[in-house]
Amino acid sequence: MGATGPVHEALAALPLVDHHCHGVVTADLDRDGFESLLTEGEPWPGISPFDTPAGVAVRRHCAPLLDLPRHAAADAYLARRAELGVREVNRRFLAAAGTEVFCVDTGYTPHPITTPGELAETADGTAYEVVRLESVAEAVAAEGIEPDAYATAFRTAAEEAVRRSGAVAVKSVAAYRTGFDLDPARPADALVTEAARLWMAEGGRLADPVLIRHLLWTAVDLGLPLQIHTGFGDNDIRLHRVDPTHLTDWLHLSKGTIPVLLLHCWPYQRQAAYLAAVFEQVYLDVGLTLHHVGPARSRAILAEALEITPFRKLLYSSDAYGLAEFYRLGALAFRQGLGDLLQDRVDADELSLPDALRIAAWTAGDNARRLYGLPATEPAPSPAPPAAPAPAPESRQPRD
Amino acid sequence: MGATGPVHEALAALPLVDHHCHGVVTADLDRDGFESLLTEGEPWPGISPFDTPAGVAVRRHCAPLLDLPRHAAADAYLARRAELGVREVNRRFLAAAGTEVFCVDTGYTPHPITTPGELAETADGTAYEVVRLESVAEAVAAEGIEPDAYATAFRTAAEEAVRRSGAVAVKSVAAYRTGFDLDPARPADALVTEAARLWMAEGGRLADPVLIRHLLWTAVDLGLPLQIHTGFGDNDIRLHRVDPTHLTDWLHLSKGTIPVLLLHCWPYQRQAAYLAAVFEQVYLDVGLTLHHVGPARSRAILAEALEITPFRKLLYSSDAYGLAEFYRLGALAFRQGLGDLLQDRVDADELSLPDALRIAAWTAGDNARRLYGLPATEPAPSPAPPAAPAPAPESRQPRD
Amino acid sequence: MGATGPVHEALAALPLVDHHCHGVVTADLDRDGFESLLTEGEPWPGISPFDTPAGVAVRRHCAPLLDLPRHAAADAYLARRAELGVREVNRRFLAAAGTEVFCVDTGYTPHPITTPGELAETADGTAYEVVRLESVAEAVAAEGIEPDAYATAFRTAAEEAVRRSGAVAVKSVAAYRTGFDLDPARPADALVTEAARLWMAEGGRLADPVLIRHLLWTAVDLGLPLQIHTGFGDNDIRLHRVDPTHLTDWLHLSKGTIPVLLLHCWPYQRQAAYLAAVFEQVYLDVGLTLHHVGPARSRAILAEALEITPFRKLLYSSDAYGLAEFYRLGALAFRQGLGDLLQDRVDADELSLPDALRIAAWTAGDNARRLYGLPATEPAPSPAPPAAPAPAPESRQPRD
Repeated sequence: MGATGPVHEALAALPLVDHHCHGVVTADLDRDGFESLLTEGEPWPGISPFDTPAGVAVRRHCAPLLDLPRHAAADAYLARRAELGVREVNRRFLAAAGTEVFCVDTGYTPHPITTPGELAETADGTAYEVVRLESVAEAVAAEGIEPDAYATAFRTAAEEAVRRSGAVAVKSVAAYRTGFDLDPARPADALVTEAARLWMAEGGRLADPVLIRHLLWTAVDLGLPLQIHTGFGDNDIRLHRVDPTHLTDWLHLSKGTIPVLLLHCWPYQRQAAYLAAVFEQVYLDVGLTLHHVGPARSRAILAEALEITPFRKLLYSSDAYGLAEFYRLGALAFRQGLGDLLQDRVDADELSLPDALRIAAWTAGDNARRLYGLPATEPAPSPAPPAAPAPAPESRQPRD
Repeated sequence: MGATGPVHEALAALPLVDHHCHGVVTADLDRDGFESLLTEGEPWPGISPFDTPAGVAVRRHCAPLLDLPRHAAADAYLARRAELGVREVNRRFLAAAGTEVFCVDTGYTPHPITTPGELAETADGTAYEVVRLESVAEAVAAEGIEPDAYATAFRTAAEEAVRRSGAVAVKSVAAYRTGFDLDPARPADALVTEAARLWMAEGGRLADPVLIRHLLWTAVDLGLPLQIHTGFGDNDIRLHRVDPTHLTDWLHLSKGTIPVLLLHCWPYQRQAAYLAAVFEQVYLDVGLTLHHVGPARSRAILAEALEITPFRKLLYSSDAYGLAEFYRLGALAFRQGLGDLLQDRVDADELSLPDALRIAAWTAGDNARRLYGLPATEPAPSPAPPAAPAPAPESRQPRD
Repeated sequence: MGATGPVHEALAALPLVDHHCHGVVTADLDRDGFESLLTEGEPWPGISPFDTPAGVAVRRHCAPLLDLPRHAAADAYLARRAELGVREVNRRFLAAAGTEVFCVDTGYTPHPITTPGELAETADGTAYEVVRLESVAEAVAAEGIEPDAYATAFRTAAEEAVRRSGAVAVKSVAAYRTGFDLDPARPADALVTEAARLWMAEGGRLADPVLIRHLLWTAVDLGLPLQIHTGFGDNDIRLHRVDPTHLTDWLHLSKGTIPVLLLHCWPYQRQAAYLAAVFEQVYLDVGLTLHHVGPARSRAILAEALEITPFRKLLYSSDAYGLAEFYRLGALAFRQGLGDLLQDRVDADELSLPDALRIAAWTAGDNARRLYGLPATEPAPSPAPPAAPAPAPESRQPRD
C-alpha cells in the first residue's frame, strides 16, 4: 500500500472512464442520511456505518479534501461537510476523482440526485447515459398495456429511451430480481404474453423469470453493450444466485451479438475473469467493491480479477451512488491498487514498464472507449499535456 | 508474519472472549488418539496428520510451551506431552491462550472432555454454555414422545436446557444435517408432526429438512443469539450446501428477532462478510480455520473476512475441540493475523492507530461481550493493567 | 516474487513429476495457430492472446530461451520461434522444464502432437500414459455395439487400453460433459443399457448423466488412480457445476477403493483442499492455472491450495497442451511460487528448513511417485548430483 513509482504516476495522470456510475445527491445530508448512503446494508442500531472499511477510507482519504486532518472523526467530518454544503463537497470529490467520462445509469433514483449533465458539469467531464431496462419495462407496464402488446411496447420504449438519451449501453439488474439460474433460451411470444398478463395483474416490480430472460434477449435485439449487475449489492441479492457463471448457457446462445459487461463481480471476480477469458464478448469490472473495501484491499481484489483476464477486458467503474465520496474513493482505490500491482511486477521484472503503462491506459479508459465507441479523449481547452481536461487528480490531494 | 508493533502489543495484552469452543480431552492420548484429533479428516494410512499446516503449527508454536525446541519432531512432541500429563498440558496451553471468557458448546462429546467449569478453572477464566439444539431435539426423540407433542416438547426442553445452564446462546449444526438450501418459512404444525413421526419411526440423528427448519424457528422463539456452523468441517459436510448465503431468505423472514452468528465460514468468509454487511442481525467469525491454517495464513483469511465486514461484527472464536493446543493456536493465529493486518494499515497510514486499537479490542472481546450481554471484564485480583486476569499470553512464549 | 533462498535452490535441482500433461504440437505454428493455443478462450477479434497474463509470462520467461531479450515483442517472439523450428523450440522448453516423469493424457488430440514416447525423448525423461475414459467409451460406441453390451465392452476396452499402454492412471472429463451434480450411486444395468441405447441412437460425444456416472464407477472397477478435471477449462465448462465438492457423495460411496486426483481446481482450490483434508483418497494439483496466471500469481494460488491440504496430497502438473512453452511456464511458476511460499515461512520461522525441503520434494515428485507406484528416481547416466538426468532447469535460464 502507498508504494509509488512510474506506474502510479502514469495512473495519476490518466483521466478515467467510469463506465458505470450513478448521480450524487443534490441536497445536504444529515447524519442518518449520510450513513445510510455509506453502506449497502440495513441500519445497524448501535453500530455506525463509519465503523466499516468504507467509513475508515472516507475518514482517511476524503477528510483532507474537506480541509480536515487525515482520519478525522465522523462528527467533525459531517460537520465540515455540512458547512461546505453539498455543491462544494460534490465539486471537490468529483474533481479529485480525475474522471473524464461518466456512463451513468439513470434508472435508479430513490433520492434526488444529479442528472448526467449536472454530474458532468460538476466534474468538468462528459456524461453518457446507460438505460436500465427493468425501469423501462416497469414504466411500460405502469401505462396499462395489453399483455400481448408488452414485448413490442417494451422493445419500442427501450429503443426510444436509447435514442432520446443517446445511451451508450443498456443495463440489467436481473441479479436483484431472479438471479441467473434461468432458462437461457429466448422465450416464445406466448410465454411472454402469459407472464406479462400475470405480472400486470399482480403488479410490483419486474421479477418474473420469463420476463427477465425476455429482457436479456431484448437487450440482444437492441444491439448495444449490456451491463449486468453481478455479485455484491444490498440484501435484495441472493449472492449464490448471482455468480456470473450461471450465465454461461445464455452467453453461448447469445454469442456473436452484443458485448456483455459484468459489473462489480465480487466475490466472484475469478469466476467473472474465467468468463472474460473464454468468451469473446465478455468484459468485467470490480466497481462498487473498490470503494467499499478501500485502498487497503483493492490491490488484492484486482489481483484476483486479473489472474486470467485478458488485459483489454478489464474496465474501470466506480458504481458510485449518492455520495460524491465514492467517486473519490473508487478512483483512488483503483489507481492505488492497480498501480501497486503493476509496479510490483515491473520491479520484480515480471512485466516490462511499457507493458505496465499500456495495461494501465487500457483499463483506466481505453478499453471502455473502444467498447462503447467513445472519442479517444476530450479535446484539451488549451495547450496542455494529454490528461489536461481532467486535472491530474493525485496532484490535488493533500498528501499530509 | 511475525511483524510486531503497537497493535500486536495491544492484542497480546487483550484477554480474548472465545465465543464458540468445546472442551478438551481429560485423558492422556496415544499417537493415534492425538493425530485423530489433529485433523478434521479421516485417517490417511501412510500420511501423518503432523504433515499438515496444523501439524507444522503445533510443532512450531506449541512445542516451546512443553519446553521443547521450536519445530520439535512429532515423536519428541508426543513423548514430552505424555511425560507432562494431560492436566499440565491443558493448563499450559489454556494459560497461553490468554482467553478470559469461553462460550462452550456442550452438545458434542464423543470423547471424555472437560466441562465448561473445568475448562474455566484450568484457564483461570469464566465459562458460559451454548446449547446445541440438535442434541436437545435428539434427546427429546430418544425419550419416545408422541409425534404431535414433539414441537412443544423440543421447545420446552430447549428452554429448560438454557435455563438450567444459564446458556448465553444456542447453536445449530444444520450444516451437517441438511445444508442451508431449505424452505425458509416456519413449517406448519401438521408438517412438523408428520416429519417427527417419520423421524422417530426411522430413528437416527436429526436430519429431516422440515425438522431442521423447525429447529431454526424454535431458536427464534427462544430469543437467544443463534450460532450456526457454516463452511469447513469434517466430511459429513457438503461444502457447497453450507455457503451461508443460502440462508438469505431465512434471514429476511427472521429479521428483527435474534442475532445470528455465522461460525467458521471458510472458504465462504467473503460470503459471510456480505451477509454481515447487509443484515443487521448477522455476525461472523473465522474460528476453526485459524488453527488449521496456522499463523502463516490467518492474516490472509482475516483480510478477506474483513474486506467489507463492519468492525463491530467480527468475533473471535477458536472452535477448539479436544486438543488444548488448538486454544493456543487459535488465539495466536488470531492475534498474529489481526495484528499484522491492522499494523500494516497503520504503517501505511490507511488506518489511525487509535482506530486500529479500537478494532482490536472490539474483535478480541467487546463485540462478543456486547452481543451476549457479558460483563465488561473480569475483576482483576490485584492492582494490575486491565488485562491482568489472564496473563498477557505472548509474554509467556519463548521467542527463540 | 523472484526471491531466492535454499528452498528455491532445492526446487531448482529437483526433477519434477508432471502427473498430468499432454503432447506438444509437432508442426510449426503461424501466428493464429500459436495464439489459439495460448488461450483457453475463443478468438477475441482485435485482442491478442499475448495481452494476457499467460502472454506476458511467455514473453518474459520463454523469450530468453529462444535467445531473445526478456519481454520481447510478440512479433519478434513468433519470428524467432519459426526460425528455430518446432523441434528445437520443443527441445529447449522441455529441457528447461526440468521434468523427469510425464504422465500423459493421450485422449485429447485435436492437433498433431507428440506421443508420450516422443515427449519423453525430447525431454530426456520418462513417460507414462493416462487413459481418458470418455475417449474409450466413445470409441466403443463408434464401433456400433449393442446397448446391452455397452457396459461390458466399455470396461473391457478400458482394461485393454490400460494394459496395452501400461497406463498409470485413468482420467475423466465429466466436468466438460455433465458437471458433478450427479446421482452418486452406481447405476443399475438396465439404466445403463437404456442410456447407451439413447446415446448411440443420437450419436455425439458422451454426455449422458447416467453414462458419466457409470464411467466413474467403471474407473473404480479398474482400480487405477482416477484423475478428474475440475474447475478452469474452456467455455464448454459450466464453472459452478465443476466445483469438486459436488463430488462429496460419490467420494463417500467410493471410499476405500481408488485414489482420486482433482486436477486444476482453480478457482475452487480451497474447496479441493477441503476434500483432500477430509477424504483419505483425495489428492489435488493446481495445474493449467499456473501457466495461465504465471509466476506473478502462482504463489497466491498455491497458498490457498495449501491452507489446509496435507503436504503429502499436493501434486505437480503442468497440464501443458500444444505449446512447449507451457511446460516451461508451469514448472517455473510452480518452483517460483512454492519456493517463495516456503522460503518466506522459513524466514519467518513458521517452518523449519528441513520441513520446507521435505514439502518441496514431496510436492515436486515424491507424492506422485508414491501414488502411481513410480520408481523412486531415474538412474543417473554418470556421476552427478541427484537431479542429473534432467539438468537443473533454473541454471539454464538467463537471469538478465
